[in-house]
Amino acid sequence: MRQSKLLLNTLRESPGDAETASHQLLLRAGLIRQLAAGIYTYMPLGRRVLRKAEQIVREEMDRAGALELLMPALQPAELWQESGRYEVYGPELMRLSDRHGREFALGPTHEEVITTLVKQEINSYRKLPVTLYQIQTKYRDERRPRFGLLRGREFLMKDAYSFDKDFEGLDRSYWEMYHAYHRIFERCGMNFRAVEADAGAIGGEGGTHEFMALAEIGEDTIAACTCCDYAANLEKAESGSSSKFIIGTGTGNLEKPEKFHTPNIKTIDQLVASLGVKTTEILKTIVFVADGTLVAVVIRGDQEINELKVKNFLGAEMIEIADPADVQAWTGVPVGFVGPHGLNLPILLDHTAAGMEQGIAGANELDYHYRHLVPARDMKQAKIGDFRTVKEGDPCPRCEEGTLKYYRGIEVGHVFKLGTKYSAKLGATYLDASGQAQSMIMGCYGIGVSRILSAVIEQNHDDNGIIWPLALAPYQVHLIPVSHNDETQMQLAMNLYRLLQEKGIEVLLDDRDERAGVKFKDADLIGLPARIVIGKDAGQGWVEFAERRTPGIKTTIPVEEVLERIRMNLGLALFP
Amino acid sequence: MRQSKLLLNTLRESPGDAETASHQLLLRAGLIRQLAAGIYTYMPLGRRVLRKAEQIVREEMDRAGALELLMPALQPAELWQESGRYEVYGPELMRLSDRHGREFALGPTHEEVITTLVKQEINSYRKLPVTLYQIQTKYRDERRPRFGLLRGREFLMKDAYSFDKDFEGLDRSYWEMYHAYHRIFERCGMNFRAVEADAGAIGGEGGTHEFMALAEIGEDTIAACTCCDYAANLEKAESGSSSKFIIGTGTGNLEKPEKFHTPNIKTIDQLVASLGVKTTEILKTIVFVADGTLVAVVIRGDQEINELKVKNFLGAEMIEIADPADVQAWTGVPVGFVGPHGLNLPILLDHTAAGMEQGIAGANELDYHYRHLVPARDMKQAKIGDFRTVKEGDPCPRCEEGTLKYYRGIEVGHVFKLGTKYSAKLGATYLDASGQAQSMIMGCYGIGVSRILSAVIEQNHDDNGIIWPLALAPYQVHLIPVSHNDETQMQLAMNLYRLLQEKGIEVLLDDRDERAGVKFKDADLIGLPARIVIGKDAGQGWVEFAERRTPGIKTTIPVEEVLERIRMNLGLALFP
Repeated sequence: MRQSKLLLNTLRESPGDAETASHQLLLRAGLIRQLAAGIYTYMPLGRRVLRKAEQIVREEMDRAGALELLMPALQPAELWQESGRYEVYGPELMRLSDRHGREFALGPTHEEVITTLVKQEINSYRKLPVTLYQIQTKYRDERRPRFGLLRGREFLMKDAYSFDKDFEGLDRSYWEMYHAYHRIFERCGMNFRAVEADAGAIGGEGGTHEFMALAEIGEDTIAACTCCDYAANLEKAESGSSSKFIIGTGTGNLEKPEKFHTPNIKTIDQLVASLGVKTTEILKTIVFVADGTLVAVVIRGDQEINELKVKNFLGAEMIEIADPADVQAWTGVPVGFVGPHGLNLPILLDHTAAGMEQGIAGANELDYHYRHLVPARDMKQAKIGDFRTVKEGDPCPRCEEGTLKYYRGIEVGHVFKLGTKYSAKLGATYLDASGQAQSMIMGCYGIGVSRILSAVIEQNHDDNGIIWPLALAPYQVHLIPVSHNDETQMQLAMNLYRLLQEKGIEVLLDDRDERAGVKFKDADLIGLPARIVIGKDAGQGWVEFAERRTPGIKTTIPVEEVLERIRMNLGLALFP
Repeated sequence: MRQSKLLLNTLRESPGDAETASHQLLLRAGLIRQLAAGIYTYMPLGRRVLRKAEQIVREEMDRAGALELLMPALQPAELWQESGRYEVYGPELMRLSDRHGREFALGPTHEEVITTLVKQEINSYRKLPVTLYQIQTKYRDERRPRFGLLRGREFLMKDAYSFDKDFEGLDRSYWEMYHAYHRIFERCGMNFRAVEADAGAIGGEGGTHEFMALAEIGEDTIAACTCCDYAANLEKAESGSSSKFIIGTGTGNLEKPEKFHTPNIKTIDQLVASLGVKTTEILKTIVFVADGTLVAVVIRGDQEINELKVKNFLGAEMIEIADPADVQAWTGVPVGFVGPHGLNLPILLDHTAAGMEQGIAGANELDYHYRHLVPARDMKQAKIGDFRTVKEGDPCPRCEEGTLKYYRGIEVGHVFKLGTKYSAKLGATYLDASGQAQSMIMGCYGIGVSRILSAVIEQNHDDNGIIWPLALAPYQVHLIPVSHNDETQMQLAMNLYRLLQEKGIEVLLDDRDERAGVKFKDADLIGLPARIVIGKDAGQGWVEFAERRTPGIKTTIPVEEVLERIRMNLGLALFP
């Protein structure tokens, strides 16, 4: 491609509202342009990258035995009403009416459509399992679109859905997709982790993994092992230490709980300051409302309670910290003085608290605390479990050697066991070998195809621009004659241009009448993997070869070696 | 691909609401399924065909130098208000509001978006010309969706837009697209004509061609030459005879106009019946309202007036047949007795009327007509022109030998000179060489990619099913072992399956445990170009080879010849 024909306008400055490196570079390198908040046009260069990502996804889905189809974006509202999501989904679901007043949703996802389709097409266990996928434009009316392609309102997704006759089958389908996702993100040159995650709003039973591209700007925190491949969302992460806390046993030698006066001392910080104790000597008690019922959770004073773990332990639908007034009304105790000893609420005791020999806690009486509270002796009615948020440095729950470390991640993929959530509601059944109708067992699997671009740029750039991994680069080689007016240079450039194209290499030829500095700056910004500069040594048949990922290293080579350099350094197979 | 894994359900019966062969076969062969009126899911087999059509379009667009981008479907309403189309487009434009109440349109076309984009990206003549295209989902809320993919509400289109600095450039861009369209539809194996057409609602200046797939079910009538490649929409078509009518000159010998009594004789049929004359002896006069002004059009009694030609001749925005009451109010004459002689209206005289030696016409007086009206003598104030609709058998306006014939056509593509319609309204200007701001000169070019499937099936089927052209066939070869339980057959089938795949052939293996009759019926329906049946001679190494387009011809060949047959008969290049 000749750069003069590419409708490629680079920007020296970042538009003001672009906060992240990837958003800035997508705009500056002329890959996308904004049409409205969260709605973008892919310019020719960006379209090429997007198509490459699409193609990698498609190839790996096909390899995994999934079948490609294409479902409509316009979805009848009745389907969403049937599944119960029409109201639940809220304002993120874009809605419209047709000329006859029939309501439609612009699909953010396709569980309803695919389940209805498969219900019509499959009736026997003989036709199961099947995994179907599409690469299709999705719509979500984000409250606050941001970060360019990361949180857009119109975006490209690959969504896949598996249908099995039993949960063993779902396991197989799930892991098939899981491994395909590994291949996809590896091929995209992405630094990612497959992260254990919570089911979330999409609902369903069983396991789920999020594929997270590691990046500072990520909106999710991940706890991952420094040694093995254990990784989980912070809210889901477990720690090797949690269950290793041994419940104190030496109760015989310990004093009885002693109530003491602590006027106006309501917080852990105040306790620490006034008593001169450590936070690890305090039993922290927080009261939650879970599905309308109060419950107290007790944890060691230096730890944080993980609401999700409490919610899952209780099997609750909804959980939140209780309103202080409600706590006082129910227990008769002001919040700052609630404690596990003598409280008339169910108590959940985190392992960290259960493992304390003794501790200080509220005495369930205004301006009083207890000391010498022994969990093993004084909180026998409590249920013990893992209710804490892991911390960096915690031992890994999987391996012996590693410790947990926090990372920030961008969710680029998601695999999810749905079970019968949709098949039961929408009546997608099959007849089993004995002729009985059974609900199909489903899984769903998403990849944010347009998101891949942002995530990869976020991980692959420097101060001067993008550093494209070969597999996603819009072109593989940038050919830059230094002077547009130098006939020798232009002749050599054209010869090389034709030669590389004949060998099947995707070449961008900077044939613009621009100063060398402008060309080099643009080339850095666009970030093609290899650059060949044809300059003053062109007459002697020498050119300069450089790779974008190692900007400091430039070698002058005879033009005859160009192909071999590209083959060796980029690892490209050439046409014969 | 193994057919047992393809989620392919054929239907023996056509669904009741499918009126056309292509709609029926798309459903019966399991290529598409309806989700809502005019909204379809492409099943795996249909998705493959759609992708092949996409790829042909993409390759030819790229070859023509057009750049691919991808614009959003969600378009801010303000852009449509700016172009003036938000109201004009009417209920076919699907509209919605986002969570903040901002209005959007779901794009049926992208003139507004692309013009705004190019306005931002291009400011100098140096960056022109450029042609941009996308392959993208479009939305149009058809009042009456029908014929499957032919008139849908969500469909796949290729739309391209050219930007030039002058009309000569537009000509070049236009014909580049015109020729690319020829290549595309030829590669799709389509029988089509490029048809001269009228500008229509999309508006603009200059030429336009519709690419019409010839098919009985087409909604448009085309007049095309039997010899040369002249073809035009019926409303636009000209005839070689139109301008060849010589205005009668022998006025000296003819009698003066004679008024005669014709009580209650208001129509041509009544004149013919009561006077015993031919329709060709009558001057038919119809009064139109063009932009609020009355005008009379006179044509020979056996001909039909073409409103579009009248409209274009007058340069009018709106035209319709005048209300009889208005005619009487304005001229004082009841409609059945209006005639060209002595009428106080402007008169347009069609060549067929101008060429008559003499004729009969209304006398502009109740119950009276004239005879011996001589156009060359009595209608000197009239403007002569081509105001008639061509008829079959008319001489071709282009070549000497041919005559016109009517065809029905399905519009599959459209190339259109827009001129400055959008660039002027949306302010898309460039600076010319002298630094003056000029409006860009635009063209737009559409192809109904999903429509191609319907058109091609409409042209390529028989009573038993589809007959895919090789370029669009979902698979190229259908491999059918007759008996699923015969190990020899299955072994040979598997060997051939692997061999053909290794050679780069797209094979569908019917590995289902079905009766042979079912397999053959399905194979006919699906319509892959070549079929290899592995039957009772499998043990001797013989198979049956047949092509779908010649169902009567089946040859038994040694298995060693299979590759050569495929290579020769289908014209496929094989991998080494």
